[in-house]
Amino acid sequence: MARALTVVTEERPGHEALSRAFFADSGRAHTVGLCGSPGSGKSSLINRLVAAARAEGRTVAVLAVDPTSAFTGGAFLGDRLRIQEHALDAGVFMRSLATRGMMGGLNATIFAAIHVLEAAGYGRIIVETVGTGQDEVDVAEVVDTVVCVSAPYQGDEFQAMKAGTMEIGDVFAVNKADLPEVERAVAMLKDALSLAPRRDGGWAPRVAPVSALSGLGVPGLCADVEAHRAHLEASGELAGRRRRQLRRELALVIARRLTRDAMDRVTDRHIDMLAGKTSDPVTLGGRLTSGRA
Amino acid sequence: MARALTVVTEERPGHEALSRAFFADSGRAHTVGLCGSPGSGKSSLINRLVAAARAEGRTVAVLAVDPTSAFTGGAFLGDRLRIQEHALDAGVFMRSLATRGMMGGLNATIFAAIHVLEAAGYGRIIVETVGTGQDEVDVAEVVDTVVCVSAPYQGDEFQAMKAGTMEIGDVFAVNKADLPEVERAVAMLKDALSLAPRRDGGWAPRVAPVSALSGLGVPGLCADVEAHRAHLEASGELAGRRRRQLRRELALVIARRLTRDAMDRVTDRHIDMLAGKTSDPVTLGGRLTSGRA
Repeated sequence: MARALTVVTEERPGHEALSRAFFADSGRAHTVGLCGSPGSGKSSLINRLVAAARAEGRTVAVLAVDPTSAFTGGAFLGDRLRIQEHALDAGVFMRSLATRGMMGGLNATIFAAIHVLEAAGYGRIIVETVGTGQDEVDVAEVVDTVVCVSAPYQGDEFQAMKAGTMEIGDVFAVNKADLPEVERAVAMLKDALSLAPRRDGGWAPRVAPVSALSGLGVPGLCADVEAHRAHLEASGELAGRRRRQLRRELALVIARRLTRDAMDRVTDRHIDMLAGKTSDPVTLGGRLTSGRA
Repeated sequence: MARALTVVTEERPGHEALSRAFFADSGRAHTVGLCGSPGSGKSSLINRLVAAARAEGRTVAVLAVDPTSAFTGGAFLGDRLRIQEHALDAGVFMRSLATRGMMGGLNATIFAAIHVLEAAGYGRIIVETVGTGQDEVDVAEVVDTVVCVSAPYQGDEFQAMKAGTMEIGDVFAVNKADLPEVERAVAMLKDALSLAPRRDGGWAPRVAPVSALSGLGVPGLCADVEAHRAHLEASGELAGRRRRQLRRELALVIARRLTRDAMDRVTDRHIDMLAGKTSDPVTLGGRLTSGRA
């Protein structure tokens, strides 16, 4: 399975045949996106969520698509050690996809990676990402449930609203709940959310104060995530989200193929025209896509 | 000019005509990419570079393509205040492009944005980005000179090597040079760089210890950036970099158009086929791009 993941995410020879084969098992897992700024404590929180799921006997896989993830080296040593506590548990799989070869953070290969993990039987798949603006694909188009993580004293509440996470979050985890400032952050978030229209058949986004450090509030966060999943099923919205995911997956496969083709069509003669200002990229691009250059 | 930037970066109606018009003035500025992890102090360092350029009478524009940038709200209040010191200087222009609408960090519209600023007469254009892995476009394909910023005690030296910045940096700024640990970080970087093959007609990447906080080392960093620019011109490598930039810009325009066309071809019937598992994204994507679906 680890090898199959490498083949599909790095688009090595044979990846298309593998993706085709694994697609047959797709749609089985509950996929959860964890997004938040660096410093919000996403990685430590994921560690807590993994431990909670294991305590219930579930298998869990984590795909980290964030160069600042504790899984990929962007964290302090203590974080990395905490995360390694699951390294010997066969019911847990963790893989960082934040390699330089990827164009964009979340990209076309995230779906293929999820299908591989679904085929391997992981019932819960967590995708860790910065989450807004930085990705080729919006995490809300990839997973069933979006958890936005913020922390007080980081300007994160403000940034969350500004960068558009208010629109995509199903559950909002406010980390570092040991700090007294969390109460105000939670109240601010609830206020802001109360102004937003209800979505997805009436789901009201939940706000969960948690502490990845002490574990405080983690059971409540887990319950919120489960409640959202149950809501998706009860309201029929799950099918809608799954169709949106499929549409995006298909569109990315198409864009990938066409982009490759486009690069092949650019010749030195075209670059001469641009360098000499006898044409411009918009005009020349238009000609090349309509087959007139 | 500010309005033109909005039109081209958000691809509003008329953006193609504007891009065409502004391309005529392209290639005039020295473009510098500043990349580094969150916490490396990129934004504060840019503030120092802007002040240094202004002291020499140059005009400077900054395009921040990083959701953790101090320009976009990801910083502590002190940083943001420092950055606002240039807000009333007509010789300085700053714009954050890290909005949710953008697919990826650096994307097709970065070139159009640079051309607008060149046409407006800015001689130095700084692009701030996370810089590796997160972007649709590699910053090294966008700018003339790449400055990689790291800071000791952040795992950044290690991460810089891991994530591929060693291959793209022309100048390496080691920030927080007030700390005694910087000496070791600089020595490590120099060691690692000495093992890399020389590129671009013999340029040996430089390592500059700096302190964005105190200003220590900033003149040296500026001199290194100037030296790289002079080297590009003297060695003839500037023309090569410019051709690489044009090639990437053209390819992005083409990919953008083709992807839009392909998205228009995806119908509910296609999603039904995927949801019902009577096809898969790879097979269906292949058919749609070859016009057989």
